Formats: sequence, C-alpha cells, structure tokens
Amino acid sequence: MATTPWYFVALLLTILTSSQGILTTLSQSDGGYKYDYATVPFLAEVFKLIISGLFLWREMRTSTSTTSRITTDWKSVRLFVIPSLIYLIHNNVQFATLTYVDTSTYQIMGNLKIVTTAILFRLFLKRKLSKLQWMAIGLLAVGTTTSQVKGCGEASCDSLFTAPIQGYLLGILSAGLSALAGIYTEFLMKRNNDSLYWQNLQLYTFGSLFNVARLIADDFRFGFEKGPWWQRIFDGYSITTWMVVLNLGSTGLLVSWLMKYADNIVKVYSTSMAMLLTMVASIYLFSFKPTVQLFLGIIICIMSLHMYFAPPQTLVDLPVTNETHPKTLKPVTVEAKTDS
Amino acid sequence: MATTPWYFVALLLTILTSSQGILTTLSQSDGGYKYDYATVPFLAEVFKLIISGLFLWREMRTSTSTTSRITTDWKSVRLFVIPSLIYLIHNNVQFATLTYVDTSTYQIMGNLKIVTTAILFRLFLKRKLSKLQWMAIGLLAVGTTTSQVKGCGEASCDSLFTAPIQGYLLGILSAGLSALAGIYTEFLMKRNNDSLYWQNLQLYTFGSLFNVARLIADDFRFGFEKGPWWQRIFDGYSITTWMVVLNLGSTGLLVSWLMKYADNIVKVYSTSMAMLLTMVASIYLFSFKPTVQLFLGIIICIMSLHMYFAPPQTLVDLPVTNETHPKTLKPVTVEAKTDS
Repeated sequence: MATTPWYFVALLLTILTSSQGILTTLSQSDGGYKYDYATVPFLAEVFKLIISGLFLWREMRTSTSTTSRITTDWKSVRLFVIPSLIYLIHNNVQFATLTYVDTSTYQIMGNLKIVTTAILFRLFLKRKLSKLQWMAIGLLAVGTTTSQVKGCGEASCDSLFTAPIQGYLLGILSAGLSALAGIYTEFLMKRNNDSLYWQNLQLYTFGSLFNVARLIADDFRFGFEKGPWWQRIFDGYSITTWMVVLNLGSTGLLVSWLMKYADNIVKVYSTSMAMLLTMVASIYLFSFKPTVQLFLGIIICIMSLHMYFAPPQTLVDLPVTNETHPKTLKPVTVEAKTDS
Repeated sequence: MATTPWYFVALLLTILTSSQGILTTLSQSDGGYKYDYATVPFLAEVFKLIISGLFLWREMRTSTSTTSRITTDWKSVRLFVIPSLIYLIHNNVQFATLTYVDTSTYQIMGNLKIVTTAILFRLFLKRKLSKLQWMAIGLLAVGTTTSQVKGCGEASCDSLFTAPIQGYLLGILSAGLSALAGIYTEFLMKRNNDSLYWQNLQLYTFGSLFNVARLIADDFRFGFEKGPWWQRIFDGYSITTWMVVLNLGSTGLLVSWLMKYADNIVKVYSTSMAMLLTMVASIYLFSFKPTVQLFLGIIICIMSLHMYFAPPQTLVDLPVTNETHPKTLKPVTVEAKTDS
C-alpha cells in the first residue's frame, strides 16, 4: 500500500468525493432524507474500523515485527481522541455560524479552509512552501470561490457582505478548526512509523464512539419519539444510502492514507477538484445550468494544481548550465511537493 | 525619456487609462453625448502629433546626429500607415461583431486580446515566455473576465453561450486584429533606432488622416444634416470633453513609449489593471455595487502580475549553490520580463 503513488490515491479520492455529493443527492426523495442522516457517518466509521481491523490482522499475520509497529502505550493511544474532539467542536461552531449567515455565504467561506490548512501546515508541521506554492494555494481558494459565485438571474441573491460580524468570525474559526483537525491527523500519522492500520484502528474507534454519543444525544434531544437509535438505525435505507455509507467510509480511508504517505495539501487539492467535478457532473445529471464562473473556476484551479505540483524548473525555464547537474535540484523539488 | 523606468510609465498609463473611462462617463449628460464622439480620437491624434513634433524639434536642436536618427525613406515611412489600416479593419469587425452578440458578451470576449497579444508576441516578435509567464497571461485573462461576470440579481442576464457562431468567430478575429495592431507597432518602434518622436510623428500623421477620413465619411453618411465636420467640431464640448481628449492623447503617447522601450505585455497588464481600477473607482464615484467577482478578479490579476514580472528565482526558492553564481541567472530573467 505504501508504494502506491500518492497521485493515484489522490485521483481516486477526487472521484469518490465527487460521487459522494452526487450519491447524497440521489439518496434523497422529494427533496428530503427518508433516513436519519446522522446514522451515515456512524456506519461509515464502523465500516472504516472493520476494514482497518481486517488489514491490520492480515498485516500482523504476514509481516515480521520490524515492518509493522504497534504502539499500545496509553500516552500514545489517547492522542487519537483529539481529531474526534476537534470535529465535535467544529460541528458546533458550524451550527452556530449558520445561525448568522445563509448557506451560500457559508459555502463561500468554506474555501478559507484551503488557506488555513496551508498556514497550519507551515506553522505546526514546519513544512516550507515556495512563494509560487503559496500563490497556487491562494489561487485554489479563489478558483473554488469563483465557481460558486451566484449567477445572473439566480432566484435567491446571497448577501455576502451583509451578514453580522459574528458570522464572519465564526466562519474563520470554523475554517481554522477544520484545518486543525487535518493538520493534527497528519501529525499523528507521521509522528512514528506505526502501522497505518493500527493508527486507523485507534482513530476510528474514537470516531465510532463519538458518533454513537451523537446519536444518543439526538435521541435525548427529541425525547425518544421515534425510539432509540439502534432500533431505527436502518430505517428508510435504500441501496443508494448504503452506497453513500460505503463511499464516505472509503474516502475516509483514502484520506488517512494520504495523511501518512502524502500530506494535507494533496488532500485539499483532491477535495477542491472533487467539488468542481461534482458541479460539472451536476450539469449532466441534474441539468444544472453551466455558468461562466464555473468554467473560469476550473481553469484557475487547474493552473493552481500545475503551479503547485509541477517541478519548478519546468515552469521558469532556468537554463541548465554545465556546472549545475540537473539532478542536484531533484530532492528540493520532491520535498517542496510532498514528502510521501 | 528613454531612461525612465518602464514600470513608472506603465503605472502612469494604468492611472490615465482608468481615468479615461471615468472622464468619458462624466462627460456624458443625461446618459448621452452632447458632442460628436468621433471628434475625440481625431483631436487626440492631433494633440499627439503636436506634442511629438515639439519634442522632435527640441531633440533635433539639442542633440547630435548620432543620438537621434531620422529615416525619411518612403519605404520606411509607408510602414507607419499599417497600424491605422489595421485599426480601420478592426473597427469594422467590431461593428459587425456587435450585430451578433450583446455588449456584455462582447466585453467578455475582449479579454481574449490578452491571450492573442501573447501569441503574436511569441510568433511575430519571437519573444520567448516561460511556462509560468504563459500561465500568468492566461490568469490575467481569466481574472479580468471574472471581474466582469454578471452578478446575481443584475437586471439583464447576458446569454454568453447563446450567440450565433459568427459572433464568436468575429470576436476572435477582433481580438486577433487588436493584438496585431499592437504587435506591429512594437515591431515598427523597435526595428531601428530612429527617434521615438520621429516615429510618433509618422504614426500620428497617418492616424490624423484616417480620423479626418472617418469624420468626412460620417458627414456623407448623414447627408451633412448638421453641416461639415470642421464647422461643428467643438459643438457641445465642455471642460470634461477636453480632458477626455488630453487624456486619450496622453495615454497614446505613453503606449508609444512602452512599445519602444518596454513591450506589448507590459501594455496589456497596464490596461487590464486600469479596467479593474475603473471598476473599483466606480463603486465610490458612481455607487456601483461591489461584487465578489470583482474582488476575486483583482486577486487573480495581482497574482498574475507577480507571476509574470517577479524574478523567477524568488518565486521557486531554488537553492543558491556555490557553483552557480546567482548573477548568471540575471540576464535570462530580464529578457524573459521585458527587454526594454
């Protein structure tokens, strides 16, 4: 697994993330969910837990103790609860933000996550980016935002500049927390050479527990009017709903892989490209009207991708003199890209 | 004059081009022109002719024959009629395009000029651009287009994808001709070391003649109903109209200077930035509603500017090894930027 090229995993993540949006739309009936949406992330966590358990078991059986390491020290295990905690806080901040701003403003502000991820990547993981890569990241955020600009003649006009200041501050906090969860997970996955599957097992155990807690909390909030969660967990599930669960679980596993063998920036590019892919697919699947801004956004993001990942010397045409062997530039290029 | 830094001239051109749009709007009364707009470019040509004549006279008096050269050979002089001819064809193509597409689609297509200029710059002037510079030019066109995307809730929705194919083909032709005029002028200005003022004198003499021809043609077209052009040339002129004339003349002189001492790409950046500056100024002056797309367009264009003109080694952070002296990279950088 570790020898799979990171761009292959990133491409797969893009396609699956893009299908996620489409499948979720398809799983709705009459514009709403027949099933309890909160059960989806829970089942996805359980799916990831089972898959990681199976892989770990296979790995333990076939490999020697030197190739796969397992740290069972509580001091190490307890660190894996932190991503779940951050996501819990993030969900609440997200909820609070939406009381101040409308969903389209929230969606536009979501692009801030691209920039906050790069900043935390630099600050906490001490990873250096070239000026060109910083510009590429800025452009990625600008490109995804451009594609989301409300078109002429659209029914509801978003009032992007008119929300109360709390809305914007919470939006920034939300982008920061979302980035923090990603950066912290990357730190966790890379801090030692523990088996990826063992790391996943810890991550998803806490993930499953937090999701169960959420389902229980929902039950209490609604006074058990539809019975406890375990009795109605599969209510309204269709084939499509199961596909949503499997898809969400699979994207989670791919993200984990990228956190260990690639990095957060690769993930950000994957999910941003997936967003654009979903919009293009929606033109065909759901007869969305194509807009100029979507077209422009795609061009901007593709340019950004090229700026970030292309070997810099191919971009600036620096002359290869006899004194400098081109090979001497290679390690820097690779490091600047991703140290997968 | 030749020792003035090109970026100073480019900045001045940006400010004056931006004022041009604002002054033209201010010169209107009740949404229309009280004066004949065709007289404005004619008077601007005459203004440029007078200024260039004065500068040439001063230069001839003070300098020796070696510093300023004047080629009076008809074979050379006649080349200066070509820009005027291209503009004449361009004006007619522009008119034809507008019978197929609406003005906002025409405006959007006008951004193609940025790309066609770069292509002709490469093909005819044999100037090489790095991949990064090509991307910067693409981004400049994308950025200016983004800023012009019709906002949500705007009264008239442009039908950008619904014009007949002839409209788009003529739009491309128009962008090609506009670029060709610029590239040809640069070729003219740089092909020998003739005095800039002498080159201007030839350019503006033909320019003035073509503009007179246009005024006469208009007179015939409208059957002299308001009398011949020389009798009504200043009809309805206000102080603002005169400022429009002086401004248009001055921008023309600055463009000429840039064609000789910088290049078409510098000019394209100046005028694109001016377009954005006009839009920002219009928010304050004419209470235009600021849009997200204008904000995004400005970010994209500033990044593009930086990508194109910044020394590439500062962008990609290439390590300076002992073998390669950083100075050896300099000439390439400067040549790639502009050989002013």
